[in-house]
Amino acid sequence: MESQTILITCPDAKGLIAKISFTISSFGLNIQVMREFVDDVTEIFFCRIECIGEFKAESLKKELTSILPDGSNVIVGPKKKKDIVILATREHHCLADLLTRNNFNELNADIKAVIANHKDLGEYVGKFNIPFHHVSHENTSKESFEKNILDIADTYNPDYIILAKFMRILSKDFVTQYQNKIINIHHSFLPAFIGANPYKKAFERGVKLIGATAHFVNDNLDEGPIITQKVIDVDHTYSVKNLVQAGHEVERNVLADALRMVFEDRVFVCGNKTIILS
Amino acid sequence: MESQTILITCPDAKGLIAKISFTISSFGLNIQVMREFVDDVTEIFFCRIECIGEFKAESLKKELTSILPDGSNVIVGPKKKKDIVILATREHHCLADLLTRNNFNELNADIKAVIANHKDLGEYVGKFNIPFHHVSHENTSKESFEKNILDIADTYNPDYIILAKFMRILSKDFVTQYQNKIINIHHSFLPAFIGANPYKKAFERGVKLIGATAHFVNDNLDEGPIITQKVIDVDHTYSVKNLVQAGHEVERNVLADALRMVFEDRVFVCGNKTIILS
Amino acid sequence: MESQTILITCPDAKGLIAKISFTISSFGLNIQVMREFVDDVTEIFFCRIECIGEFKAESLKKELTSILPDGSNVIVGPKKKKDIVILATREHHCLADLLTRNNFNELNADIKAVIANHKDLGEYVGKFNIPFHHVSHENTSKESFEKNILDIADTYNPDYIILAKFMRILSKDFVTQYQNKIINIHHSFLPAFIGANPYKKAFERGVKLIGATAHFVNDNLDEGPIITQKVIDVDHTYSVKNLVQAGHEVERNVLADALRMVFEDRVFVCGNKTIILS
Amino acid sequence: MESQTILITCPDAKGLIAKISFTISSFGLNIQVMREFVDDVTEIFFCRIECIGEFKAESLKKELTSILPDGSNVIVGPKKKKDIVILATREHHCLADLLTRNNFNELNADIKAVIANHKDLGEYVGKFNIPFHHVSHENTSKESFEKNILDIADTYNPDYIILAKFMRILSKDFVTQYQNKIINIHHSFLPAFIGANPYKKAFERGVKLIGATAHFVNDNLDEGPIITQKVIDVDHTYSVKNLVQAGHEVERNVLADALRMVFEDRVFVCGNKTIILS
Repeated sequence: MESQTILITCPDAKGLIAKISFTISSFGLNIQVMREFVDDVTEIFFCRIECIGEFKAESLKKELTSILPDGSNVIVGPKKKKDIVILATREHHCLADLLTRNNFNELNADIKAVIANHKDLGEYVGKFNIPFHHVSHENTSKESFEKNILDIADTYNPDYIILAKFMRILSKDFVTQYQNKIINIHHSFLPAFIGANPYKKAFERGVKLIGATAHFVNDNLDEGPIITQKVIDVDHTYSVKNLVQAGHEVERNVLADALRMVFEDRVFVCGNKTIILS
Repeated sequence: MESQTILITCPDAKGLIAKISFTISSFGLNIQVMREFVDDVTEIFFCRIECIGEFKAESLKKELTSILPDGSNVIVGPKKKKDIVILATREHHCLADLLTRNNFNELNADIKAVIANHKDLGEYVGKFNIPFHHVSHENTSKESFEKNILDIADTYNPDYIILAKFMRILSKDFVTQYQNKIINIHHSFLPAFIGANPYKKAFERGVKLIGATAHFVNDNLDEGPIITQKVIDVDHTYSVKNLVQAGHEVERNVLADALRMVFEDRVFVCGNKTIILS
Repeated sequence: MESQTILITCPDAKGLIAKISFTISSFGLNIQVMREFVDDVTEIFFCRIECIGEFKAESLKKELTSILPDGSNVIVGPKKKKDIVILATREHHCLADLLTRNNFNELNADIKAVIANHKDLGEYVGKFNIPFHHVSHENTSKESFEKNILDIADTYNPDYIILAKFMRILSKDFVTQYQNKIINIHHSFLPAFIGANPYKKAFERGVKLIGATAHFVNDNLDEGPIITQKVIDVDHTYSVKNLVQAGHEVERNVLADALRMVFEDRVFVCGNKTIILS
Repeated sequence: MESQTILITCPDAKGLIAKISFTISSFGLNIQVMREFVDDVTEIFFCRIECIGEFKAESLKKELTSILPDGSNVIVGPKKKKDIVILATREHHCLADLLTRNNFNELNADIKAVIANHKDLGEYVGKFNIPFHHVSHENTSKESFEKNILDIADTYNPDYIILAKFMRILSKDFVTQYQNKIINIHHSFLPAFIGANPYKKAFERGVKLIGATAHFVNDNLDEGPIITQKVIDVDHTYSVKNLVQAGHEVERNVLADALRMVFEDRVFVCGNKTIILS
């Protein structure tokens, strides 16, 4: 008896839950968990179902599509570990955390490669027998730099590209090629402190909390759909350096939380927001 | 077009979601939110549905009961403000919070009366034009004391009795008459510091967090199904008095959170646990 | 034996703690708690001391001033309940919380009056026997509106003016007359969502946390020194209305926390930041 | 100009802060941070000072001891990385986190060796070039098992022994040899769920929060002085396995937080409590 996940996005309509659950039942499958949400602004229906039984995935997908409104998107398949490529620069804390989880098979994904624009992290990545590619951003155009990254990333055919403190801003062209497939960890509680040096800005503003935000990357810097956010208390005794150190702990935890949900197929993108069916 | 809530508890079986949603759909109702859960230990299925349409509540209940396994419990009805009676002693923080929310119509319930075993809070309750009954526990048997409370409470026919820092332990007899209808706020993070003087015990143990627990009351002291828990950070500078003060803030917030969920019919009792379908 | 608080602000210099504690000791006083901080940017030394003994407050202040660098500010005095005036508009949640604490003598302050630009809250304030003044902002100039408020507020000679969801922006002139004495609760986690309608903006941005900020008011809107901030988790199911409701709980708690610290003389303003010596 | 830390524990007396700061000043040293606390129960004074200047550590210690009450304990010295030995069993999450921090020089300590009663973690430890010692608890007495561990640990002369999910209970004899030098991470929010299988107990009790506790180990199981505690929200959907997974994240973070404070000499033991001078 297989367990599979069904993901549905379609225009909202009356009776969708009844139709969907009836169809699944008619295939002899048993629904274990079903979560759905209708976004009032876009009037789109989102649904995530885990069910168990003897699966005819293609037929089920066809049947579900036929009973749903035009414009529906149905995905039926077994839970599957995602293939990911990580982009990094020099900071290790998020990357090291992902490598540890990957090593102990806790990431729900396989890290296929790490690409970095500095060499610093190469030795550490090497401990885990993961390919490390150094692609410098120096002495080259942004276009060429990004092409070099894409050429390498594409060879791994990744489900997701994870920016684990990758400190270069990606062009619209790059992002378009991995639409809703690039996840970034931003070192602030967005939309506070958009852009560079958020901890310095936080210090100057005298905030009493700092945070981190994991989000999908779209073409506007720091404007993509937010997946997870967390904050921690800070006070006047924190220097910029202390804020950075404390922030690293949050960044690491936020990115791991976001990836766990994304890799379990719980996160839907809806405009510049996310719907998370936990 | 009415909005109603459907609550279902029944033995688990295959195809329940399909059957239920199909039945609701066949009555011309549209499901807005549906949450369900199967408890693996008891194999009981819990379901909460909000739907909208032209309701024939009695027929729907009958039809749902007929398609569900034996032993099912189906409740169909419009969202309804609960009637509650509050039991208190001398501490005001939880009671005052509930009175404020009640005054501004934010409690999703109507406080019908306050019963207290001391007179201290009478004047404050009076500001809000809520009946205040003083029932002393002194110079009387526990049996008689409880009978006096019950006699008054019963006249209000309450949906729930809220123990807002009521410092007397209720007998099994009392509890049985309001099974799963009495909610208490306990001044510790249960099961830590069960019983009396939890803040003193917390001080002596040197804990770094203190908390509060809202729970249904059953016949074993502090052993009833937990609804909500919260904690806050404390440190070595806190005296017992400081712990009590800090704890009051948590108690107040935890009780309000728990009641919000209970009064929205989101909380199911399953053995000594709660299932919360948010 | 009296307990008094000593507050010191002065340019940083070597040996300050030794000089200060030696002087206090030479007056026969015993230091119970001493907290200090040097702000590296401004090189200002902040110190808060609680001590006990037979006090000659004026002599001690004179002696401390004489041993400290030029430009020092020394305050010596017994812990004293602050007199406050509250400004409100229509929302009750922060005001009601402060009235409750005031009623039970838990605010460490006396609410002398409530001034509001709408009449709605008058009846509620009346329950607590606190003067309520309605000062309309309609059919009058901003200048005149603020003068009317100031005329009333001044008669109470308040230590602090608390903006408990007062929805009008105060002019520079008003603020200057109560420099570092006006405390506002802002309904967002500043500096995110500065200005009007923060919950609507938060909804549109799809954030996963919302928060509130208590801060001193200076002449730039939402730019004053931050005292306290808190956030709570939200998700895609929250409508703007839900965000507002959830936000009210945080606002209330944040304002109460901030006031507790301010009224205990723990909060120093340093440029656009606060130093909190807890 | 050196920076050094001064740690003082002594019976409380009048004027201690003045005496101490005057003495330090008379040595030409400048106090940067000073924190102190008097425990009301034991009447012991705790003080931690960071100061800067030309140090004569031995003379200063001698002078401070001479001016303090009998029974005082004074430590003067530069901030120093601690040497630690880690004891583990099979679970990797805490150990891997410490190894990562150690690798990037963020632990404020040097991991000298890992000793485990199972072989599982040996390969992972090997990646980081840290000695791994397998000491089996099987086919041997507890006495002999512990002697084998101690023989190895002693050779590294560790400042602290860290139990990173070491699943054997240490005897009083073992603990006595490293009094207040053994730190354990317990997988529950103590004192809830003392002893074995806390997550199973938490599941059965239906708690809405789970937590972890880092504490010094004394001879009573799970009764040692608590350093740090944290909790996270859980709900009815968590199986025991889910609780364990979620708990691992907290355990890892709590242990890291506790060690950061201990290794910065901020944690004093006072009976079965800790005083943390941050």
